[in-house]
Amino acid sequence: MKSEYRIRLHPPFIVGNEAKYASEAIAQGDLALGEYIGRFERLVADYMEVEYAVAVSSGTAALHLSLLALDVMPSTRIAIPALTFIAPVNAALYCQANVLLTDSDRDTWLMIPQAPPLGFNLPVALYGSIFSTFPEDDQLVDLSQAMGMKLHGRRFPASRIATLSFNGNKTITTGSGGMVLTRDKGLADEVRFLANQAKLPGPDFVHPRIGYNYRMGNVAAAIGCAQMEGIQEILNRQSYIDWTYRGAFRLDERLQFHGYPSECEPSRWLFTMLILEGREKRDAVIRALAEKRIESRPVFRPIHEYRPSLKTIGPLPNATRIADCGISLPSGAGLTEEEQDKVCDIVLRELGQQPPAKAGG
Amino acid sequence: MKSEYRIRLHPPFIVGNEAKYASEAIAQGDLALGEYIGRFERLVADYMEVEYAVAVSSGTAALHLSLLALDVMPSTRIAIPALTFIAPVNAALYCQANVLLTDSDRDTWLMIPQAPPLGFNLPVALYGSIFSTFPEDDQLVDLSQAMGMKLHGRRFPASRIATLSFNGNKTITTGSGGMVLTRDKGLADEVRFLANQAKLPGPDFVHPRIGYNYRMGNVAAAIGCAQMEGIQEILNRQSYIDWTYRGAFRLDERLQFHGYPSECEPSRWLFTMLILEGREKRDAVIRALAEKRIESRPVFRPIHEYRPSLKTIGPLPNATRIADCGISLPSGAGLTEEEQDKVCDIVLRELGQQPPAKAGG
Repeated sequence: MKSEYRIRLHPPFIVGNEAKYASEAIAQGDLALGEYIGRFERLVADYMEVEYAVAVSSGTAALHLSLLALDVMPSTRIAIPALTFIAPVNAALYCQANVLLTDSDRDTWLMIPQAPPLGFNLPVALYGSIFSTFPEDDQLVDLSQAMGMKLHGRRFPASRIATLSFNGNKTITTGSGGMVLTRDKGLADEVRFLANQAKLPGPDFVHPRIGYNYRMGNVAAAIGCAQMEGIQEILNRQSYIDWTYRGAFRLDERLQFHGYPSECEPSRWLFTMLILEGREKRDAVIRALAEKRIESRPVFRPIHEYRPSLKTIGPLPNATRIADCGISLPSGAGLTEEEQDKVCDIVLRELGQQPPAKAGG
Repeated sequence: MKSEYRIRLHPPFIVGNEAKYASEAIAQGDLALGEYIGRFERLVADYMEVEYAVAVSSGTAALHLSLLALDVMPSTRIAIPALTFIAPVNAALYCQANVLLTDSDRDTWLMIPQAPPLGFNLPVALYGSIFSTFPEDDQLVDLSQAMGMKLHGRRFPASRIATLSFNGNKTITTGSGGMVLTRDKGLADEVRFLANQAKLPGPDFVHPRIGYNYRMGNVAAAIGCAQMEGIQEILNRQSYIDWTYRGAFRLDERLQFHGYPSECEPSRWLFTMLILEGREKRDAVIRALAEKRIESRPVFRPIHEYRPSLKTIGPLPNATRIADCGISLPSGAGLTEEEQDKVCDIVLRELGQQPPAKAGG
């Protein structure tokens, strides 16, 4: 599809060997199963400093299978931030879990942990960072938005499972795809079993439990292997883009940056800030960018707004404020300095500022 | 993965442009969304002689979304053949439907329709053919195994929805993938909405209902477009392979071929026959082939055998008999005559026969 945008929010960054590996998988006739899957799982597991990785068809599938492997049942209470993408809530609802939506921290925008009885928190690494939850709650962490972050110097958090997404706008992409990461072989085996229609090994088709068709195909995994060859470059570029935005906007007190917990070195996946004047001004900036065919995006709406049947824990004022004021700006690793200058200029003009003179410019 | 088999059961048949189109999608940076998706949907809809097609991540996903679009609820009774792959049963169970397993016809191996009150039949086009069900029951037909068949001269049956699978062993493949086909725009829109996390149009992230991450990626769709360029060649080759097996085995009365309903021109996806001596002899043939690194496969086990909690409609003797005696032989469109001769020789020898002298051979 010819994008309506000249500058997209977070397009894939092609590292180099994506088409080559995909073509090899096709030439070998290994489109569904094939050796790229295990190779991609190994590359990601090693990078994430964790023992087991299971490649699946999406980040949502990774969350769903993780919750099933953790024996989530209708009685299980799962506290999930109201301010994030719908995937973790949907995954919990597929398991008929008892979802409790929580507010977010004012500065880091991360869920305020709740330690619900008979359940656990499902923290989401919103826009690339995460905090330490209580160790006893650390069942599952959604790292879909945060591949490359470090928490206390480590890429894999202290949870039993963490999940990744390789959707088209993520740090690395396989088109669609996700991964379940764990140190626990039993959990990894269970996830792999459920992802393959709960089929027992052997020639006969025997599926003793409800299973799912959630495997990642070999061509997608081939693309993932090529992407992994460039992950450090991608993260470096994302980081540079994030710092450049911070530099350009640092003087405007009507803007507030995304803060990071001190224990976390974020992945800086997608630059996002608050325009404190509120939703109207924020939407005007989005429109001004769109007129120049530049894609930007409001922060997620808090889930309780559009799913009023879900329970919340108290009022969620921070989530609403961040959603009203938040804007994400183009942050793909391929963004050029010229493109980023243009984005900054339009944002600053719309806020009524002259763009600052560039150092040495 | 280097296959343990020299002759695989049904490997993908590479038509020609698969790697080229996949590489183009990658070069354009359109890995998740992109114009190949709509193009693939159009190609398949036109081929299948139906108005609407929605590409999704698997045949199971296609069934799941179809059942949701048809408003299947826990009270809905769905009659499904016990003798098939687990996908339609799993899809119905995701919706908490009331699954009723039915026996199969002795000759065509197809489900015996039941017209359950408060529900409908979900016929499966087992090994490439289908029959006319009662028109009032025709809600959903699973054509995963039967792309290319014609029922009363038409590729799209009289149902409200039909689904396809593009898994690695199917007539055409996208690695993993599936499609929902319908004449009803409302159903197609609903399926598309649910496949995209039930996200409303617009910049804000608003998902008023439970949705799913079931979209097909653009690279998979690109491969599908290339496969569609060769579908007639693939079907011709499959047909030739099927007739060749029938010729080779026609004189042995201990073998019984898959019969087809008179109203159906089958797709002859995967040659399958019964070895009437029973399971032991059938398994011996499978082992004899495997020793020569030739892949074959027993027919599906009837689902009530390994999922005893599911309800059945009466006893299911035909399903058990077909499962015990049935064997599928290599049928990929790339199978050479030499390879097929070898398969036939091994089967006939194991049955205690001298292979017949070849005409002109």
